[in-house]
Parts: sequence; C-alpha cells; structure tokens
Amino acid sequence: MTESPFPMLPVSQALEIVLQHTSPGMPVHLPLREASGLILADDVVANEPLPPFPASVKDGYAVVADDGPGTYPVVGSVTAGQVAEFEVKPGTVAYITTGAPIPSGADAVIMVEETQPVDNQPASQQSVQQVEILTQVQTGSDIRPIGIDVQRGEQILAADQRLYAAEIGLLATAGVTQVPVFGKPKVAILSTGDELVEPDQPMGPGQIRDSNRSMLMAAIGEAGGQVIDLGIGQDERADLERRIRRGLDEADILITSGGVSMGDLDLLKGLLDETGQIHFGRIRMKPGKPLTFATAQVGGRKRLIFGLPGNPVSSLVTFYLFVVPALRKMAGWPNPLLNRIQAHLGQPLPLDAFRPEYHRSTVTWDAALNNGRGGYLAISTGSQASSRLLSMRTANALLELPQQEGVLPAGSIVTALQIGDLFT
Amino acid sequence: MTESPFPMLPVSQALEIVLQHTSPGMPVHLPLREASGLILADDVVANEPLPPFPASVKDGYAVVADDGPGTYPVVGSVTAGQVAEFEVKPGTVAYITTGAPIPSGADAVIMVEETQPVDNQPASQQSVQQVEILTQVQTGSDIRPIGIDVQRGEQILAADQRLYAAEIGLLATAGVTQVPVFGKPKVAILSTGDELVEPDQPMGPGQIRDSNRSMLMAAIGEAGGQVIDLGIGQDERADLERRIRRGLDEADILITSGGVSMGDLDLLKGLLDETGQIHFGRIRMKPGKPLTFATAQVGGRKRLIFGLPGNPVSSLVTFYLFVVPALRKMAGWPNPLLNRIQAHLGQPLPLDAFRPEYHRSTVTWDAALNNGRGGYLAISTGSQASSRLLSMRTANALLELPQQEGVLPAGSIVTALQIGDLFT
Repeated sequence: MTESPFPMLPVSQALEIVLQHTSPGMPVHLPLREASGLILADDVVANEPLPPFPASVKDGYAVVADDGPGTYPVVGSVTAGQVAEFEVKPGTVAYITTGAPIPSGADAVIMVEETQPVDNQPASQQSVQQVEILTQVQTGSDIRPIGIDVQRGEQILAADQRLYAAEIGLLATAGVTQVPVFGKPKVAILSTGDELVEPDQPMGPGQIRDSNRSMLMAAIGEAGGQVIDLGIGQDERADLERRIRRGLDEADILITSGGVSMGDLDLLKGLLDETGQIHFGRIRMKPGKPLTFATAQVGGRKRLIFGLPGNPVSSLVTFYLFVVPALRKMAGWPNPLLNRIQAHLGQPLPLDAFRPEYHRSTVTWDAALNNGRGGYLAISTGSQASSRLLSMRTANALLELPQQEGVLPAGSIVTALQIGDLFT
Repeated sequence: MTESPFPMLPVSQALEIVLQHTSPGMPVHLPLREASGLILADDVVANEPLPPFPASVKDGYAVVADDGPGTYPVVGSVTAGQVAEFEVKPGTVAYITTGAPIPSGADAVIMVEETQPVDNQPASQQSVQQVEILTQVQTGSDIRPIGIDVQRGEQILAADQRLYAAEIGLLATAGVTQVPVFGKPKVAILSTGDELVEPDQPMGPGQIRDSNRSMLMAAIGEAGGQVIDLGIGQDERADLERRIRRGLDEADILITSGGVSMGDLDLLKGLLDETGQIHFGRIRMKPGKPLTFATAQVGGRKRLIFGLPGNPVSSLVTFYLFVVPALRKMAGWPNPLLNRIQAHLGQPLPLDAFRPEYHRSTVTWDAALNNGRGGYLAISTGSQASSRLLSMRTANALLELPQQEGVLPAGSIVTALQIGDLFT
C-alpha cells in the first residue's frame, strides 16, 4: 500500500503553524480614498482642535447673553467661512449663520426662531437693522467652543483600527490624507489540471470548466486581498514552473488549486530550493483532507504557499479556514481568526466518527430564539459531498461538528465560523 | 417666529416614502470578475450536467467490480483531460487519475492505496504491466456519475441571490461568464459651505476641513454604490447649480451634505422644475432632524435627492437609515432594510423624552450571554453630540432607543440596526 508521507494534523494545530509563519506586511501610506477597509498602522493624533474657533450651532444672532430680551441694533453679520471684523459690544447683536465663528464680544447665540424682525423686515436677511430678542439664554448657548468635538493632541484613532466611513471622516477631520495602513496582501492563484478549460471556452471530451479559479479570485477579493491571476497551468513541468515562479516573485501568498499530487509536490519542492519548506500536507477534517502548506524566502521575504484540494468545496472551505486568517494577519488584523458564534441547529445532523466536519450552513438571526432575546438559527445547505459546490450556495457559516458517532439533534447549540454576511 | 414649513415625520414613515420612490435599476450583463457582491437579476440554469462524464474520484485503477481481488493486466491508462480509446474488459484493469473519464467497460475505481504493484514496480506509474487488486468494491465505487453534482437543466442560482465566491464558482461551472446582475447605483456627493476646505489644504481663519464628503464617499463604497464626486459647492448660485445639474444628469442618487437651509431649498426647488418634488424635510429622530428628501425626473428616470444634515454624525446616521436602504433597493436587494438584531445593553442609557434616539454603539458577540447560548452585547460609544464624529468611531450598530422619559437599565434587550461588521 502507498501511504501519504504526511501525518494527519488537527485543524487547530495546522492553523497555528500557518499563523506562526505569517507576519503583518510593511505599512504603506495610501491616499484617504484608498484606505477604506484597511487596518491603520499607526495612532493618529489631532494637531488642531475641532472646531478650531468658537462656532455658531444655529442661524440667528450673536449676542451678549447678559443683555437679555429686548430690541437691539444689528451691528454686522458673519457667515460660515468668514471672520467678523467688528465687535459685538453689550447692547448690540450680530447676524450669524451655522458654523460661522463667533464675533469677539459675543458669548451666546439666539436662534432666529427666537427673534422677531423690527418693522416687518424678513428675519433671515442680513439687511435687518434692528431685531427683537425674545428669550434669555445662558452664556455659551448654541456655541461650540474650541475643541469641544476633538481636542488638540487628542488621539482620534488607534493603530490596529479598521477604517470604515466614520474613521475615514475622522482622518479627513485631522487632515491626514496620506494614511499609514497595511496594504492589501497580494495573492496569486494558479489552477492545475489538463482537464480544465476557461469558463468561457467550449468543453472538449473529458474536459470540465475551471470554476475554482473564478471562485477563489472572488473569495480573495472578499477577504481583502489583491488577486494575481496565474491562469491554468498545464501538467507540464516548464509551464507550471514558469507560473509558480511568477507567483512567488510577485505575490505574498501563492495558491494552487487542483490538488497537489505526489508528482506536483516533487515539482514544488524543487522550485522551493534550500529556503523552502513544506510544513504539512494533510488535515483531519471533512471536507478538504489534502491541504499542503509551504513557505519560501523569495527576494528577502517569506511567501506562503497553499496547495488547495481540487474539489471545489474542499478548496473553498480550506481557503476560509487557513488562507483567510493568514491574509488577515498580513493585512494587520489584530485578531485574524474567523468570527465564531453560537447557533441553534435547525435540524438534526449526522456526525462523522472519523473526522470533525465543517458543515456548510445558512445562519440567520431569529428574534424568537432564546425566549425573544434573539439568536442565530443554522440550516444545512443539504448534501455535503465535497464536489457539490451547490452545498456552498448561500452558506455564510461553517458549523464545527465534533468528530463522533451518532446524530446531533435539532435545537443543539453548535459553534459556527462566519464565512459570509450573517444576514440574507 | 420663523418655523420650518415641514412637518416632523417619524423615521418609519419617512423610510416608507423613500422606498416607495425607489425602484431596482435596469439589469446589465457584467463579466464574471465584476459580478462579485452584486445581486443576480435572473435565474441561472445549467445547460450541461456536472460532471459531464463519469469521472474517477481517486488515483488508482478502473476495474470491473465483479472481478474482485486478484492480479490483473493493466491494459492502458487515462489521465484527467484525456479520453481512453480502449475498453476495460472483464479480467483487465486500467490506470486512472482523479478527474479522468472512466473508460468504457469499467464500472468502479480502486484507489492506488488498495493495490500492490507486481514485480515491485512503483504503483503510481503508468508503466505498470500487472497490478494486484487487494479489495472487493461495489459497482460505481469512487466514480462520480454524470450529473451527480449538477443535473442538466437544474436551476443552480435563483434571481435575487447575492453573488459571493461560491455563487461565482457556480456561474463559472455553468459557463455563465456574462452575468445578468443589477449594477452598482451611481451616487453623486456634493458638500456645501463657504467654510469648507479640502482635507489636504491649509485651513484659513473661520474655515474647517470638509470631512463629511470623504466619510460619505467611503460609506457609499461600503454600501455598494459607485461614487461621483461633485466637490465642494461654494454658496454661490451658479456654482451650486452647475454641480447639482451634473449630479442629477449622471447619478441615480444625489446627496448634498452641509445642511439644506431655506435658501438652499429654494435653489433646489428651482432646479427641480416641474418634475421635481420635495417629499419631506424633517424627521423625528436624534440625531439628524433636518433631512430633506426629493425626487426628480431627469432623462426619463427618477433620481433621488437627499439633503443630509451638516453635522458629521447626523449626516452619517441619516445616510445609514435612509440612503443605504434606497441604494440596496436600486441594487436589487430583495430586502433592502438594515439588518435588525437584539442586543443586551452593557450599561444604563438615558432616554430622550422628545425624540427616538439612534444610539451609536459597538456590538460584539458574547458567548457567555443567554446562559452560554451566546448573544450580542452593546456598548455605547460615549457622548452622543451630533457634531462629535468620535461617537461613530468603532460603531457597528445603531441602538433604537424609544422616545420616553427615564433610563434604560443595563441588561435590557434593545433592537440594533447593523451599520458595520458585527465583530471586531
């Protein structure tokens, strides 16, 4: 009998090995518009306060609060973006718009709704000569003082923060338009197999379409990677070698899909030369047993190499379990692991006595679970054959089913690894 | 007193009005590589079965199952992508690799690990002349029959399905490389205000940086829209008019940020002419009271116009509550509403007696909640002043706090609208 030379590793141990060999990339500075979704590589401190001047919160009149209600002359007007060149002395007021700097002398703003034009002049015009103030306000009323929103020297963002819209707004507020971030890891993807044709090409006898590469390119993009497409490698040494070389030269991670046979492994070993190392070749899991992980130093940097199984489901599941955490760690995520939640099993599921199973499932929020406190309900995607990509359709979670005999009853609590949006 | 001409609408009613005026865009055909994340506009049916031929699941020997264990001559070999030109008659076997078509006559595959080369020849080579079969297998063993994964004529994807990696793989499997999808809605964004300078420009006296536009451009991208940047409009009629015209001509949705004052409204009304209509101008909510929604027919299509408040928080919160659902509906989402979950309040929160509040919060999964069945824990981002963008930092949910007196105690169950990834 011919046995694989690799021991069968548990998933947790294999993942540990992968992450041990993975380091965050070198931080780069990217324009604000390209930083969305990336991880900040440095703390960001505000160099100026916000607002940088005392600003009006309303359209109305800048007043001396102590003056109180009464009719006052309007000594000027100031709109947003201007600076008043006059002073508001006691017994006078000035027209002001939202966001405009408070003129010196004034210490409160009365909103226009609490004033009355004298002689029936329209209230919101700057031509008003006199205005009646209808209410008494306190000092500081409707004024945003300097630094109320952001103080000078305040840390507005911490390194390791992922940048979404609000954080992008904060960077713009602080004038940080070249943002220190971890860039998108480059991931090269190579399909292997003489039976494969491009999806838009006609299939000859014995051929099938290369669906894995399109699928994995989409998955790389979803995971925040940048795709380098190495095409379909023919089972011919020179061709494979050329494509793998390019991947190792240009990418941080090289993925091959199509199953790494013993012969391919020999080829890969040859290409890795003295710096390369194959760390494992088989995982105790269902689906996806044959998964090869290797590393190599190329151009002074360590590259990760994943030989994913050829079956589409095994290929995508091992991508989520091993490549996504590595990619996230490279991209600077402080916790690169897949999000793990608890879910209520919506149906009984048979277990596998020999391998832990990563059961494809559609998980949805159900407000009625946990006595109306809400919870996730997990429904299987059906037959879990590893060649049946339909079992990944609409799957947003992998249920971690234990390796044991028997059946897990409906209603059981299982842990689930998030692989897609948790709502549909 | 000068009052707003608009009644104060409840959020639910305003959202209903927005969605009534929103329709899905016209479906387009996009290359497979550009379809990721979009909504499929048509059912997709497989025109061929998968596999298209009976295929070997293993590297090994194609046999006649009834022959049973014993030593047999190897009459040929077939590898993936080839078609055998020989027949496997009873009493003979053929070498076969994973994915290769089963030669005619054979009805099972014996994996190489269950065979023994005769005369110590290496088992995996095609030069083997005779091989010993060590086990008895059943007819069909280790063969994927035609159509086992996908049947001819089977619907592999339904319209309305969002396309993630697995669905992209299924489209590639079916040879669909021009995919019928709803394209990304075009969203034009205009900042208004003489006090605004671009984030990379020095601030003069009375000026502040335009952070809202950068923030909203990131938010549009996150929500699946395509940004058209209209820049900063000066408070000068001709300039504003030119920018707004461009937005209405080119975009499906026009967003202005900077607060729509009465004067701006008049300008907008003038530009909308006889086809335009302003539907509402104020919402009963905290933050974000002043929100204008209008529609106009331009070039035979209805455009949506949102006048977002100038305060950064109000601006982003109203974007999530009203623009995101509209954008999703245009992009073909069958349920365009924000995902709503239940969360356990991690601290007491004061309520507002006059307006329902959308409290910015960081929600994380806590496996210990609900007696170990798991649940979401919501922590406030702190001071909720509408100018304080720091209150949106790390916020991934808006807690829907009811309009009432008093304090909601820690541990209360609140509903939360998801505005970001639900893990950190």
